[in-house]
Amino acid sequence: MKNDCIFCAIAAGEIPCFKVYEDDVVLAYLDINPCTKGHTLVIPKAHSAGLLDTPPDALKEIVARVQKVAAHVKEVLGCDGFNILQNNGEAAGQSVFHLHFHIVPRYKDGPSLTFQSRKGDMAALAALGERLRF
Amino acid sequence: MKNDCIFCAIAAGEIPCFKVYEDDVVLAYLDINPCTKGHTLVIPKAHSAGLLDTPPDALKEIVARVQKVAAHVKEVLGCDGFNILQNNGEAAGQSVFHLHFHIVPRYKDGPSLTFQSRKGDMAALAALGERLRF
Repeated sequence: MKNDCIFCAIAAGEIPCFKVYEDDVVLAYLDINPCTKGHTLVIPKAHSAGLLDTPPDALKEIVARVQKVAAHVKEVLGCDGFNILQNNGEAAGQSVFHLHFHIVPRYKDGPSLTFQSRKGDMAALAALGERLRF
Repeated sequence: MKNDCIFCAIAAGEIPCFKVYEDDVVLAYLDINPCTKGHTLVIPKAHSAGLLDTPPDALKEIVARVQKVAAHVKEVLGCDGFNILQNNGEAAGQSVFHLHFHIVPRYKDGPSLTFQSRKGDMAALAALGERLRF
């Protein structure tokens, strides 16, 4: 547990939340600023700031819970789909620096949520692919 | 491998891609319609349509690779952050029904990408939390 981390305080029960699920590894609760109805956060009880700070073995256990909670939320709400979103860094929209996975239920009748994309330049992509390949 | 699945065909090498990484479990390559520079997809070689169709043990191995590829992309590009986005269902923006994780590098100078949220109604959230709790 990390001092001054609001999600650690929520995981410890020191700050209340609208709990959806809890076990020894994670806590899941409703986002109080939801993108859609049923927007749920899954956080590990052990603090890490983001994806790259989380030991792979811990991450595996956390993601298995994300899957389990997403299946449950989808079944109960009968949504038409859902997004898993996980933000790393202020530039990526991360506002609390404790790893969290957003489960965002989606409905045919909206709201519309998207990351805008556009057609890439093939030559630039080829060069970038070479640079990134490992 | 599933017939008529374009990502299975990419994983099998039948359709070219701008490859970033490959091992026995996943293939990672550049999205040709990127949200930002370095937008990379990580797909399992074994077909599954989405998160809920993927065996948990397989998912764990896939996500460990997502973490590994994201760390590499961030290091090479020096981006300021990144999002992990995984869409399930047409209503959630899924267009290819083969599990894929988007790694979207983010930069302080943009572009801006966000799922719009708004302040929730506390009484409605409390009722929804009760309904979803398991």
